[in-house]
Amino acid sequence: MSTTQTNKIEIIKAATSKINEVDFENLSFGSIFTDHLFECDFKNGEWQKPVIKPYAPFLLDPSSRVFHYGQAIFEGMKAYKDEDDAIWLFRPDENYKRFNKSAVRMAMQEVPEDIFMNGLKELLKLDEAWIKRGKGNSMYIRPFMIATGTGVIANPSDNYKFMIILSPVSAYYAGEVKVLIAEHYSRAANGGIGAAKAAGNYAAQFYPTSLANKQGFQQVIWTDDATHTKLEEAGTMNVFFRINDTLFTAPVSERILDGVTRKTLIDLAKSEGINVDVRPVLVSELVEASKNGTLKEIFGAGTAAVVSPISGFSYQDVYHELPNNEDSMALKLKDKLTNIQNKIAEDTFGWTVKV
Amino acid sequence: MSTTQTNKIEIIKAATSKINEVDFENLSFGSIFTDHLFECDFKNGEWQKPVIKPYAPFLLDPSSRVFHYGQAIFEGMKAYKDEDDAIWLFRPDENYKRFNKSAVRMAMQEVPEDIFMNGLKELLKLDEAWIKRGKGNSMYIRPFMIATGTGVIANPSDNYKFMIILSPVSAYYAGEVKVLIAEHYSRAANGGIGAAKAAGNYAAQFYPTSLANKQGFQQVIWTDDATHTKLEEAGTMNVFFRINDTLFTAPVSERILDGVTRKTLIDLAKSEGINVDVRPVLVSELVEASKNGTLKEIFGAGTAAVVSPISGFSYQDVYHELPNNEDSMALKLKDKLTNIQNKIAEDTFGWTVKV
Ligand SMILES: Cc1ncc(COP(=O)(O)O)c(C=O)c1O
Ligand SMILES: Cc1ncc(COP(=O)(O)O)c(C=O)c1O
Repeated sequence: MSTTQTNKIEIIKAATSKINEVDFENLSFGSIFTDHLFECDFKNGEWQKPVIKPYAPFLLDPSSRVFHYGQAIFEGMKAYKDEDDAIWLFRPDENYKRFNKSAVRMAMQEVPEDIFMNGLKELLKLDEAWIKRGKGNSMYIRPFMIATGTGVIANPSDNYKFMIILSPVSAYYAGEVKVLIAEHYSRAANGGIGAAKAAGNYAAQFYPTSLANKQGFQQVIWTDDATHTKLEEAGTMNVFFRINDTLFTAPVSERILDGVTRKTLIDLAKSEGINVDVRPVLVSELVEASKNGTLKEIFGAGTAAVVSPISGFSYQDVYHELPNNEDSMALKLKDKLTNIQNKIAEDTFGWTVKV
Repeated sequence: MSTTQTNKIEIIKAATSKINEVDFENLSFGSIFTDHLFECDFKNGEWQKPVIKPYAPFLLDPSSRVFHYGQAIFEGMKAYKDEDDAIWLFRPDENYKRFNKSAVRMAMQEVPEDIFMNGLKELLKLDEAWIKRGKGNSMYIRPFMIATGTGVIANPSDNYKFMIILSPVSAYYAGEVKVLIAEHYSRAANGGIGAAKAAGNYAAQFYPTSLANKQGFQQVIWTDDATHTKLEEAGTMNVFFRINDTLFTAPVSERILDGVTRKTLIDLAKSEGINVDVRPVLVSELVEASKNGTLKEIFGAGTAAVVSPISGFSYQDVYHELPNNEDSMALKLKDKLTNIQNKIAEDTFGWTVKV
C-alpha cells in the first residue's frame, strides 16, 4: 500500500487490484465492489481527515447507535464513461442535497459539500478502470452515513461515519414486473420519514413485499397509509401512469421520495411535448382507466432500474393486465435519458457533470 | 483468555475484568458494558455455534445490509439480584416473543428460544459480579440482531448476527418530564412497523424530539399519523392517563409497541382495585379533563425508566400543568412493581424467573 495526498484526501492504495477476478459480462446488481472506498468520520464535533483506502470490513462497537436506533442514510447515483473515457456524473448536486435533507430528518450530521463531492470524484478517478463504456454500463455509487457513537440510550449519536463505495453495474432486465397495490401495509407515515433515504424505510417494506412475491408480484405500489386510496411510489422507484396520452405521477410529499429520475423524466417528457400531470392519483382512477381501456402504461423510475415498465397490477384480488404498446412512452423516455447519461445524445439540460 | 463449553455455548473468558474501573454510584444509562457478550450468527441457512466472548468491536463489511436497508431489531429487559445473590429476570418470555415478532415484521430470521434464553442466562451468570443488589439497581439487557449479509440491493439479508450485551444501571431520576403532544410529526404508520422494536423507529423520532427539546419539552407523546387526534405512546414508553380515579391507556395496535411494563401495570392496577380503561384516548378528552380539573396524572411506562411521572403537557401552544398528587398512582404502582422485580415483595403473579 502506498500513501499520497490529493486535495487533502489521504489516499492509501490497495497493493493489488481485484479487477481481473470480475466477470463484467455477468454483474449481479450491487454485489461487486471496486478496490477502494472513501471514508470520513465525524467525531469530537468535527469532520476528520478524509481518506480513500482499500475496500475492507471495518470495526464497530456492539453498542453503536446504527445497530440500535437506526440512524443510517444513503444515496444512490451513477457514473458513466463516454467514448473518450471521460467520466460523467448525472445531476450529482441533487443527490448531495437530498443526502443532507435525509441527514437533517434523521438528526444526523450534514456532510460538507467538498467532502461529498471531492471524495466521490477522487474515488471514481482512482477506480476508473472499473467503469465500462457503453450504453447500460455504469458505476453505481453508494454514499452512506451511519451513527458510530456508542451507548444503548435512544438519543442521536455524536459520532458518524460517512463512506462511499462503488459497484460496477450493467443494464439489467428485471424480467416481467407485476405489481400489487397496497391495501393494508404502508411504507411511510404522515409526519414520518418517507421522504428521507433512511435505511429503516427499506427494511419496513421487506415483509409486505415478500407476501406480494409469494402471490406472484415482484413489487408493491404503496398507497397513503391513512386511506390507502392514493397511489404513492414503489420500493425504490417513483411511479408514472399513462392514461390516454397524459403521464400522471404523484406530487412529492413528506411520504414520498423526491426522485431524481422522476423529476428528470417530467422535464424530458415535457420537452417531448408530452402532457404531464403531477397530482395525487387515486387507485379508483387507475382501476377505472384500466376497465375503460384508457390506461396505457405504468412504469417505475429510479436510478438503479432507470425506467421499469410494469406489465400489470392487482388490486382487491383483481389482476389488471396492461396493453402492449407499440409507442411506449416508458421506452422512449428511457432511451432519451440513457442517451444523455451515456453522452450519446447532447445534454441540452446541463444535467451531466464531468469528473 | 480461556475457552470452555457450557450447554453447547463456547465460552471465551476475558483475560482481565474491567469491573474495578466502573463507578457503580454514578452510572449513566446504557453507557457501560460488562466484560462479555453473547453472539450467534445465522449463515448458510442455519444458526452457527453460539459463543460468549470478551466485549469488543467486531468487523462488518461496508455493504452490510444493516447499514443500507435497516434490518435491525432489539429488546430491552432487566435482571435483578435478590438479597441472597440469586439473579432474577422479569417476564423474559414476553421479550423473547416480541423479539421474534419484530424479526418477522422486518423479514429477519427468528431466533430459537434456546439460543436466546440460554445465551442470556449463561452471560448473566458469567458477569454476575456486575449485577448489584438493592432497589433500583439492575442489569439492563440488550438482545439485538442485525443483517450482516452484503450487497447494496434492497432485499432481505441471508445472514444475521444476534448479540446480547449487558449494561449495569441504577435507579435514575429523569428530572422533570414535560411532554409535547405531536401535531405534525409521527412515529408510526397504519400498516407500518410501529409495533416492532425496529431500530429505524427510534431514529425517526430524534429530529421531532429535538425540536420539542428546544421548546423545553423532554419527550413527545405521539398521536395517530392519520388524524393526530388519538394519543398513542412516547418515544420508549407507553403512556397512562389518570382521569379522576380511572387509568386510561391506548390499546396496542400495529402502530403501538406492546410494552411489557404497560401490560404489567394494567394487571397490577386491577389487582389494587383501580379501574383501568383500555381504549383510544383522544387529545381533546385530555385537554377537556385538564381544563375541568379531572386530569390527575400522566405517566410513562417502560423497562428503562420503569414508571415516569409527567408534570405537564403542551398542545396547540397551550401548556397544561398537572396537579401535585398526594396519592400518586404512578408512584404507588412503581413501588409495587419494583418491589416484585427486586424480590422485596412476593411475586403472586409468577412474573419473576430465576436464572
Ligand atoms: C423510495 C424510493 N423512491 C424513489 C426512488 C428513485 O429515486 P432516484 O430517481 O433519485 O433514484 C428511490 C431510489 O433511489 C427510492 O429509494
Ligand atoms: C416505542 C416503545 N414503547 C414502549 C416501550 C415500553 O416497553 P417495555 O415496557 O416492554 O419496555 C418501549 C421500550 O421498551 C418502546 O421502545
